[in-house]
Amino acid sequence: MVNNNNSVNKINPDLARERSKCTFNVEELTTFIDGSSENTKTRRERENFFLKSITQPKVPLEYLSHQERYDELMRMSVELYTSAREYSMEHGNPYEVYRHILGATLGPALTPDGNPLTLHFIMFLATIMGQGNDEQNVEWTTKAAGIQIIGTYAQTELGHGTFIRGLETTATYDETTEEFVLNSPTLTSYKWWPGGLGHASNYAIVMAQLYTKGICHGIHAFIVQLRDEDTHVPLKGIKIGEIGAKLAMNANNNGYLGLEHVRIPRKQMLMKHSQVLKDGTYQKAPNSKLTYSTMILMRVVIVENAADYLKRAVVIATRYSAVRRQSKLKETEPELQILDFVTQQYRIFPLIATVFAFHATAKWVWELFTNIEREILEGELTRLPELHAIACCLKAVSTTDCAQGVETCRFTCGGHGFMMSSSLPTTYGIATAACTYEGENTVMLLQTARYLMKSYQGFLQGKKLTPTLVYIEKFKGRATPSFQPRVEWIISALENVAARQIETAHGNIMHRTQNGVDYEHAWNQTSIELVSAAEMHCLVNVVTIFYEHVKSSKENLSKELALVMEQLLELYAVSTALKYSGKLLQFTNTTGHDVSELQRWLEDILAAIRPNAVGIVDGFDLSDDILRSTLGAYDGNVYERLYEEAQKSPMNQDQENKTFHKYLKPFLKSNM
Amino acid sequence: MVNNNNSVNKINPDLARERSKCTFNVEELTTFIDGSSENTKTRRERENFFLKSITQPKVPLEYLSHQERYDELMRMSVELYTSAREYSMEHGNPYEVYRHILGATLGPALTPDGNPLTLHFIMFLATIMGQGNDEQNVEWTTKAAGIQIIGTYAQTELGHGTFIRGLETTATYDETTEEFVLNSPTLTSYKWWPGGLGHASNYAIVMAQLYTKGICHGIHAFIVQLRDEDTHVPLKGIKIGEIGAKLAMNANNNGYLGLEHVRIPRKQMLMKHSQVLKDGTYQKAPNSKLTYSTMILMRVVIVENAADYLKRAVVIATRYSAVRRQSKLKETEPELQILDFVTQQYRIFPLIATVFAFHATAKWVWELFTNIEREILEGELTRLPELHAIACCLKAVSTTDCAQGVETCRFTCGGHGFMMSSSLPTTYGIATAACTYEGENTVMLLQTARYLMKSYQGFLQGKKLTPTLVYIEKFKGRATPSFQPRVEWIISALENVAARQIETAHGNIMHRTQNGVDYEHAWNQTSIELVSAAEMHCLVNVVTIFYEHVKSSKENLSKELALVMEQLLELYAVSTALKYSGKLLQFTNTTGHDVSELQRWLEDILAAIRPNAVGIVDGFDLSDDILRSTLGAYDGNVYERLYEEAQKSPMNQDQENKTFHKYLKPFLKSNM
Repeated sequence: MVNNNNSVNKINPDLARERSKCTFNVEELTTFIDGSSENTKTRRERENFFLKSITQPKVPLEYLSHQERYDELMRMSVELYTSAREYSMEHGNPYEVYRHILGATLGPALTPDGNPLTLHFIMFLATIMGQGNDEQNVEWTTKAAGIQIIGTYAQTELGHGTFIRGLETTATYDETTEEFVLNSPTLTSYKWWPGGLGHASNYAIVMAQLYTKGICHGIHAFIVQLRDEDTHVPLKGIKIGEIGAKLAMNANNNGYLGLEHVRIPRKQMLMKHSQVLKDGTYQKAPNSKLTYSTMILMRVVIVENAADYLKRAVVIATRYSAVRRQSKLKETEPELQILDFVTQQYRIFPLIATVFAFHATAKWVWELFTNIEREILEGELTRLPELHAIACCLKAVSTTDCAQGVETCRFTCGGHGFMMSSSLPTTYGIATAACTYEGENTVMLLQTARYLMKSYQGFLQGKKLTPTLVYIEKFKGRATPSFQPRVEWIISALENVAARQIETAHGNIMHRTQNGVDYEHAWNQTSIELVSAAEMHCLVNVVTIFYEHVKSSKENLSKELALVMEQLLELYAVSTALKYSGKLLQFTNTTGHDVSELQRWLEDILAAIRPNAVGIVDGFDLSDDILRSTLGAYDGNVYERLYEEAQKSPMNQDQENKTFHKYLKPFLKSNM
Repeated sequence: MVNNNNSVNKINPDLARERSKCTFNVEELTTFIDGSSENTKTRRERENFFLKSITQPKVPLEYLSHQERYDELMRMSVELYTSAREYSMEHGNPYEVYRHILGATLGPALTPDGNPLTLHFIMFLATIMGQGNDEQNVEWTTKAAGIQIIGTYAQTELGHGTFIRGLETTATYDETTEEFVLNSPTLTSYKWWPGGLGHASNYAIVMAQLYTKGICHGIHAFIVQLRDEDTHVPLKGIKIGEIGAKLAMNANNNGYLGLEHVRIPRKQMLMKHSQVLKDGTYQKAPNSKLTYSTMILMRVVIVENAADYLKRAVVIATRYSAVRRQSKLKETEPELQILDFVTQQYRIFPLIATVFAFHATAKWVWELFTNIEREILEGELTRLPELHAIACCLKAVSTTDCAQGVETCRFTCGGHGFMMSSSLPTTYGIATAACTYEGENTVMLLQTARYLMKSYQGFLQGKKLTPTLVYIEKFKGRATPSFQPRVEWIISALENVAARQIETAHGNIMHRTQNGVDYEHAWNQTSIELVSAAEMHCLVNVVTIFYEHVKSSKENLSKELALVMEQLLELYAVSTALKYSGKLLQFTNTTGHDVSELQRWLEDILAAIRPNAVGIVDGFDLSDDILRSTLGAYDGNVYERLYEEAQKSPMNQDQENKTFHKYLKPFLKSNM
């Protein structure tokens, strides 16, 4: 393992034995995941370069005050961007480089408590490039890409998040001065949440309701200067600060922004699509759906991130479970590696399989996105709704399963998983945030359901189904074939469930409207089943994509690795089927006996994967500097690391015990 | 609401309307929960007294450094204990008072980031009183109860938690000096986790393997002095410090302890049960099960705590959902209170019902515990295994459901739930810890399963079933009656499931042993189903207890409140049945059609509870000073509070932006 810089340490004997038992070549798996050995090489080089480019704080961040953390993270972010520019100059591909260093693998390693400058690239620069006209691009992209200014993206408000139409900030055009007046009419209209808005940024894209000649044209994007470039003092009419402590990522500098009649020049509205002319004439964008694309892109990227967060957690849980020995099955035997408890395997192994399933899905949806974006540029928009629908449910399901999966991994590490040094609490903090940002998950599923109902209605009227939904047709009036212990059977059963669940939800809405409820209230009354339909639709697609991925990859893999991939596919499919056994039994001709068979099948695959579990997570190739985990390090010296990490607490340097003398001693003495 | 000290504020109009719609008397509910109006009065007085007795830090704890937090919490803990003594002198009942101020309701309000002195009362003093002989009680109880010394309870080690027999610390008797020599032979034998061990305590109960004359007698308790009473400097051979940052409760001062041949006098082994005589003769306790009782007590208390943590979360989620308006069903209508979305009701209301179910169960198991403890004192131990079994699964199920429930509540609050000022992240941190401490939950369920298998085996051989298991008999060869929309049917169906799941697990173990696997390995191979059996056993008991509780209380309640309690019972029963619909369909004659009926029933109850949701959570009577939540305050001024709380961040006082001038400005300038 080239990349595991602690490999000079003595390896824990249990871990060493696990590795010696592994039936496949770990490096082959790494290459397979990366796509090619060239990719693996580039990734490792890049990781090593950037991990070395940042000086980690002397005292671990969790012991610092809030302000000290921000200070340290700003230092580190500046170091990072300095190196990134240097690296991009030499190697090219700046977009690719930023995506890598801010992404879910390197991001938490390089800037472990958030990064106050992330949104500058991800959103500020990207929005200008995507929504600015040529002139605006020349002026602003130069400054932003050159990091002469620092910007963020201010959309969410105190009173509105996912429901964007409800945003209250206004931008009113004043044709007498050819300016927009940006204003926050209420407390709830204050921008709230944007990363880096609190104290880091001096500019922001502000999303606001555009008014010209007294008419509202909906949400548009404006470039607003927030602070003096030299003194960093907030400009007149700008009320700004950070929103305060959060569950995680406290150096992200999430901020609030109130605008008191702030004037900006007309040319600071981003005008690639819609325009406001000098005289205040509003010219609508040719297609309002064009701005969807960034939103969908974010959700597509999140699916990949979800897989990456979960990956960290399963590596830690698997290696720790191989090292940890606890309890005996029989008095005469030594204590067991906890990885030998079937309940432990049952909690961890399906999550390893989930990482692979989500990776395959992320790749698939990324390709779908780039294809459809190409079509959009050519003016072809017909496939946009389907992409939107699948991206929404994938975002919801991947982030939910990932966050729960990270917590499950933490639980499998017992008390030590509660230690910050395990890196599991931090991983959960980042992972769980994704369940809410970029579209709250329940709302996301309901958006997918909207598409499902519309498509189903069309299907009933004889319209053709789109590719992600063709399975509906298969089960019109047909039952699932009898149980067979094959992934194909599971896919077929899940398709049947999804089709029936969609049909049921559709029927219930119809039933309610026929009883006099209007459509939207009937929709709300049926929404529990609509969410369920969207979930099942999503899972059918994930299992199918994973199935196709394994099938198409197999011939390029060694026999040994191909077998492991088959087992992981089976495990994902079987554990999904068992998780939704209620649906299978309710909606298909699956029997209780079949469920028992699935249970036995599950137990068989867990046993089959057991000898390779450590090898598989080694194949993820997450170096110790990326994992930053006492429990998950490559050498498995868990207890030594826990002890060493504890020594870094400033409390343990305080031999004088000031607090004792200040508070406790006077109290104890007064009691004598 | 006497207790809501912010009631002078203007109430949010949506909340005010909710309250005006409430169909029952909220104060009647509060009285019902407390048991009597006298209890309510005492509780409120006590809460007010203690909330006033502590000076909260000027800067919220989340902005302080680790050391500053410890310092502040020590100050607050000392204030708290000073007041507690004062209060107990006047009102009596010191045990009751400490249980209240350290418990799950007042604890997080009074000392929000943990309390370095908690274990002194809960474990150090309690163990001496329970396991010390008369002489030891005279000497040590005086010092400890008078708080002249501060102690903790050191059991868990780096290498061993739930599996107590595996502990490695040794206490070897040296008859030549009449001393015990305490020693940590390995790094993994270091004590790890005890609260207050790091820097707060000067004494500890140390659990160690006792050796006399070369023979090991298992785990015993020893009083060990850790630090000089005057200087607080660690004594010779004591290696001590804190274990470092954790997911939550960072001022708990959880510590580690290594013992290097530390000698203590013979009389510092707690000798109420087992004894070591001067010459080293070991006298075994008459019944080794007697020491179980404290462990069971802790688990019993945890069930109540779980209900209390979840209670905090549902109050916050419900009130916030009544205030928050987001999205429109129809363009012509105003934005909806998010509490009107059925998906939101579906996530929150079953958790409100769960609070009541767990409260009833906690009361039931507490009474069972006190009854059986009385029997134990009379030498009657027959009911101890059943108590142990039910306490184990209740601990596991209540803490898992509670922690997940708190997270669900946080998700229902969207982004704002991620703010520390919502109090939801802190509540989750405390709640989730309980899934691991005092017995890891999977291990707990397997302990219950052990009892289930033994009982079932006995039943097959003609033995009588104990009260928590009698339902097995009912379903020997009989099917669940046909579906009826009544709680009695659900109980019957769940009983049938549990009985069949127990039978199946038992059968699978038998099948494996018949195929040559030895019992303990067959046990491990069947453990997924064993865990499931224990869960179902637990749920049958919880639903039944809640059912009996509502049935027996109804006649003392007004018609209106009785109806609400019926609805909550139905909701808990129906949502439990739906959650386990797979089991119902697999193991009973429930049909897919019945499941659809359950779904419809669920939707009906959600609608029925909707108008009273705010009233019900108001009835929990958690004052603003207890909730400490911007989102959950009684007046519902959510956005004002979020904004005010943000202003408390020290970052927002720093108008100079030192960090900008230090790091960001030089970087931006260098790019020009």
